[in-house]
Amino acid sequence: MAEQEGITCKKADLSEWYNEAVLKAGLADFSAVKGFMFIRPYGYGIWEQIQAVFNAMLFRTGHVNAYAPALIPERFLRKEKEHVEGFAPEMFLVTESGSGKLDERLVLRPTSETVIYDAYAKWVRSWRDLPILYNYWNSVFRAEIKSTKLFLRTCEFLWQEGHTVHATEDEAMREVLAVLELYRQLAEEVLAVPVVLGRKTEREKFAGAATSTCIEAMMPDGRALQMGTSHHLGQNFSKAFDIAFLDQNQQRQFAWQASWGVSTRLIGAVVMTHGDDRGLILPPAVAPYQAVIVPIFKDDTKAVVLKEARRLAETLAVRVHVDDRDGYSPGWKFNEWEMKGVPLRIEVGPKDLEKRQAVLVRRDTGAKSAVPLATLHAAVAEILEDIQHALLKRAKKLLADQTHHVQSFKDLEKTLEEKRGFLVAGWCQSRTCEDHVKDKTGADIRVVPFEPISQDCVICGKPGIQVYFAKAY
Amino acid sequence: MAEQEGITCKKADLSEWYNEAVLKAGLADFSAVKGFMFIRPYGYGIWEQIQAVFNAMLFRTGHVNAYAPALIPERFLRKEKEHVEGFAPEMFLVTESGSGKLDERLVLRPTSETVIYDAYAKWVRSWRDLPILYNYWNSVFRAEIKSTKLFLRTCEFLWQEGHTVHATEDEAMREVLAVLELYRQLAEEVLAVPVVLGRKTEREKFAGAATSTCIEAMMPDGRALQMGTSHHLGQNFSKAFDIAFLDQNQQRQFAWQASWGVSTRLIGAVVMTHGDDRGLILPPAVAPYQAVIVPIFKDDTKAVVLKEARRLAETLAVRVHVDDRDGYSPGWKFNEWEMKGVPLRIEVGPKDLEKRQAVLVRRDTGAKSAVPLATLHAAVAEILEDIQHALLKRAKKLLADQTHHVQSFKDLEKTLEEKRGFLVAGWCQSRTCEDHVKDKTGADIRVVPFEPISQDCVICGKPGIQVYFAKAY
Repeated sequence: MAEQEGITCKKADLSEWYNEAVLKAGLADFSAVKGFMFIRPYGYGIWEQIQAVFNAMLFRTGHVNAYAPALIPERFLRKEKEHVEGFAPEMFLVTESGSGKLDERLVLRPTSETVIYDAYAKWVRSWRDLPILYNYWNSVFRAEIKSTKLFLRTCEFLWQEGHTVHATEDEAMREVLAVLELYRQLAEEVLAVPVVLGRKTEREKFAGAATSTCIEAMMPDGRALQMGTSHHLGQNFSKAFDIAFLDQNQQRQFAWQASWGVSTRLIGAVVMTHGDDRGLILPPAVAPYQAVIVPIFKDDTKAVVLKEARRLAETLAVRVHVDDRDGYSPGWKFNEWEMKGVPLRIEVGPKDLEKRQAVLVRRDTGAKSAVPLATLHAAVAEILEDIQHALLKRAKKLLADQTHHVQSFKDLEKTLEEKRGFLVAGWCQSRTCEDHVKDKTGADIRVVPFEPISQDCVICGKPGIQVYFAKAY
Repeated sequence: MAEQEGITCKKADLSEWYNEAVLKAGLADFSAVKGFMFIRPYGYGIWEQIQAVFNAMLFRTGHVNAYAPALIPERFLRKEKEHVEGFAPEMFLVTESGSGKLDERLVLRPTSETVIYDAYAKWVRSWRDLPILYNYWNSVFRAEIKSTKLFLRTCEFLWQEGHTVHATEDEAMREVLAVLELYRQLAEEVLAVPVVLGRKTEREKFAGAATSTCIEAMMPDGRALQMGTSHHLGQNFSKAFDIAFLDQNQQRQFAWQASWGVSTRLIGAVVMTHGDDRGLILPPAVAPYQAVIVPIFKDDTKAVVLKEARRLAETLAVRVHVDDRDGYSPGWKFNEWEMKGVPLRIEVGPKDLEKRQAVLVRRDTGAKSAVPLATLHAAVAEILEDIQHALLKRAKKLLADQTHHVQSFKDLEKTLEEKRGFLVAGWCQSRTCEDHVKDKTGADIRVVPFEPISQDCVICGKPGIQVYFAKAY
């Protein structure tokens, strides 16, 4: 790879670096329509890994996938007052077809509660029909007015939205928390991005929810990133859409509901959390290629080296790619795969083959080791596992370093200005004090931990609980 | 299952039967917006099987998946003249967002050639960038004016669209035919729906293509169903969108392109081809559940029977579901799973367990057999394979019975009126004679076989080639 084809920014300049890394690694590109994103195969490959892992989690917990229409009658969105207020400014409206004006204005789904719950109202009759544990993989549309950022802020993004229906409030809350725990596992154990968990404040909750819970990560520039949300909808929507059932005593009851989602934003979190000045570093669990074999040959050794490289690829039980392209030097290929963040590079040349070995190079540390071909299978598996753990460990340290306990508003302001990060502070649970921090500093309450710890409010000094403030993406 | 919960129509009344079967088996439902479809988990489960099988085929042949934006500037569609003429009447237009009129009218993708090729023009520079072998799973939108039919004719449907770019015309044509062969395998070997292959006439080809090829199936009511299309686009789009590359001699060349797709319409074909008066019959290769275990118990035997049913499920290497619901009789469950078309039912009751056996019931023939538990694993695999073959064999016979060779236009008209089906006849390759048949009978040319067989035109008597006429969905 030529110099100018690599990453030219330092990661310390996160915003510029991020754009360049995403574009040059071939994860995504801007589309001709402002605010829209084209997800290229390498980025989509990460999404496919996330889908596979999360589908397995969903399957184990009794969920099934379905598909709901992308167009929603505008009147549906008006049925739940808070919901429409939250989403109205962001709606895209379909008003015409090729044959003229539509009778009814249709909204491109910004989220599918309303169109799905209209259908659930038809399907739910009896307690026997519950629970409904459906998940939907699709794309949603939000007319963002702020500047576009690939994977993080675009007018269309891919996600999954779960929509479940339960007979009791308790069962719905158990679902909310069980899914949040799946999200934590996905973030930490698969993406190697550590998160804090908790609920949202009234101000920050999902439009239409009774309670919103979330996982939040901390990016290297000190800004928080919401990674996933899981909402208890109470009976807000079941009453608006008439989702009711006859219970075992033949009494008609409104159902209790939950909804939850994670999006392609997760890919943005992975890029920002793990990358370095040379480009991406992908956790093995989501890397489209976990290892790349770069054969090193000249004309006279090409046939034998390529043959051996392909044979080795077949013996490995990981997602491996043999880069057999002509016309690119091994060094060029090394640089390209480093930029693309493939966790492990395997070099095989004529001298290695003579010694019956391959050279392994870790993307995260750059450490090189020569490994006998006979034990390559085990060595690769072991190193990949180690990389997965090392990335999480490093990210956890970063999270700890960026989490600051503050005792006064002055301290909070100063720390925010100097370091950003999570500011752990007391809050009296009043909207006034929450608004005050937001207005003065731009930080909001990202998470209210589930286990309350008493601490006096950082604004008014009244008794309160610990919460996490941060500026956010 | 109570009488009225089952299918009430005979399959001979195909249209009514189809609606009832799709709705009652829980494959899909109508949405609140006219023309739109909600795909329920059981229907989506079939689609997931199709996706898994086809993704494996794509992976083996070097294709990768990606995602392109759903909204396309209206001006893009105007760049290829035939293309926009073909799609303009069916477009849904986004003209407003929550914050007001859009600067530019956007079309909800009816198909994504234009938005994808705009991006390809940026990415393709050199012969080294070719071929591009990308596939896209998404949903597309077509404002249909005719009546809605679930899976067959809806305003939004799920599909995959492949968009490939090649250095030479030959290579593009090889891609077109290679994908058509994958589609044939998918239809015949997975869905057990036999097809005829060939190219479309100029009149029937895809708007913007140089040559369209397709696979066509024959439904039990004698109407043809287009199952998949694979188009050679020539340089029509590469010239309109400026997709050009420097070849190995540093000469600038326009690229050659192919596009191809299959949709959720395949599910409609499966339902119509294999079902019977009692409901669906799903080929094992795409059935979400290949077998269902129905435990037969009373209060005192419940624990032991359920335990054994679950243990058996774990020993089977197929997609199996244990129907452990309370409050439904075994007979009710038998009827429900028959309606839903699960290929194999496994009954396990206390008497069976005493004899260390289970009773297997095939959905396609109703044949019952008692099988020792010790050999259940092998017996289930064998029966499922046999069902898969038997369904294809039966469907092939149906196709043969519905294929009629005709020698005169009178014969063609009469056969169409009496039996419909494929009418194999000579055609002089003139638009006049093609239009004549369409205008007089409603039948069009579905397929021009790749290997031409000489036969005089059924209209004008001039020398011609054999083609397949039919009325179509």
